[in-house]
Amino acid sequence: MVRRTGRRPGNPDTRDAILAAARAAFAEKGYDGASIRAIATGAGVDPALVHHYFGTKDKLFLAAMNAPIDPGDIIPEVLAGDPDGLGERLVTMFLTVWDSPAGKAGVGLLRSAVSSEWTARLFRDFVVTQVLRRVMGAVPMKPEEAPLRVSLVASQFAGLALVRYVIKVEPLASAPREVLVAAVGPTVQRYIFGELPAPGPGADAG
Amino acid sequence: MVRRTGRRPGNPDTRDAILAAARAAFAEKGYDGASIRAIATGAGVDPALVHHYFGTKDKLFLAAMNAPIDPGDIIPEVLAGDPDGLGERLVTMFLTVWDSPAGKAGVGLLRSAVSSEWTARLFRDFVVTQVLRRVMGAVPMKPEEAPLRVSLVASQFAGLALVRYVIKVEPLASAPREVLVAAVGPTVQRYIFGELPAPGPGADAG
Repeated sequence: MVRRTGRRPGNPDTRDAILAAARAAFAEKGYDGASIRAIATGAGVDPALVHHYFGTKDKLFLAAMNAPIDPGDIIPEVLAGDPDGLGERLVTMFLTVWDSPAGKAGVGLLRSAVSSEWTARLFRDFVVTQVLRRVMGAVPMKPEEAPLRVSLVASQFAGLALVRYVIKVEPLASAPREVLVAAVGPTVQRYIFGELPAPGPGADAG
Repeated sequence: MVRRTGRRPGNPDTRDAILAAARAAFAEKGYDGASIRAIATGAGVDPALVHHYFGTKDKLFLAAMNAPIDPGDIIPEVLAGDPDGLGERLVTMFLTVWDSPAGKAGVGLLRSAVSSEWTARLFRDFVVTQVLRRVMGAVPMKPEEAPLRVSLVASQFAGLALVRYVIKVEPLASAPREVLVAAVGPTVQRYIFGELPAPGPGADAG
């Protein structure tokens, strides 16, 4: 009677089985090592069904992490503008997402990344595959420096999330967004474009 | 037979009862609101016994938090030197403590601050009473700006601890200490001494 529409009500049990298999595979083999085929096998379904439910591997990964937003939707836009304002735009984007209802899910994600080795690995892969690779593709920086730059940015953002939304140290916890953008923007800008220290002696020796 | 020495073997049950009462009091009333007298009452002991076991309220607080180090032992020394190098010295001190065996306790502390509202409050009080007040007493800064400056520094340090020691995002997790001192030192320096943004419109209106 009812015509099929674009909705995919699907079978919740099948969906959950795929997500459970995906979490196990991503945690064990990492994003790059986990194949849709192996995840489908783990869930006892056909690979086509995984694509049907979740679309791409990226989308499946985000669903498996319970990520409240898709960095692919917002990062490219932020990266596309004037490089001089990139730090401030990234901080603005970060605070806007965390101040929104998605922030609650972010707090949950951060809590579980801190409490379990397993989620920590998903979190690392999230930073590398969903953020780092996008940044490297869009911002001119030496490829060999990009990972340190991105992990420095990640350290400032992780700490901002922790102090503002989880531990809630005042006055940072209730500071107006524009105050934090002005204070933290230059930090992020410097981590992305500033001079990086040469690795210490011994770091690349031997 | 055995002569009494300076050791305080004491009664482990009494000690534990005092610590439990202290944790409850600090979490409920905060550092300033919790009195040694009330903690003693909560533990069913004489206040003199609390002093006997733990010395000062500061020391009791650190013991109640399982803090691996006493900031009072190391912060004054770091603050006393040349202001130009303060950011780098603070990062060096921070990484030295976290790279030492005390870092394991730090990871435990951070995990519990993230997972429980109760520990988060102890953590906030720790930042304010053990770090902020010491910094304000030793570094020339406008008193009204000090809390935001210190919480910005806390955000960078919390994120550094999270990314290097808990979530372990590479290459930051295994970067040589001097690379991070050079990269992060200027951030801390700017948060302490740099120009702070004026609060946005509306922040102090009405």
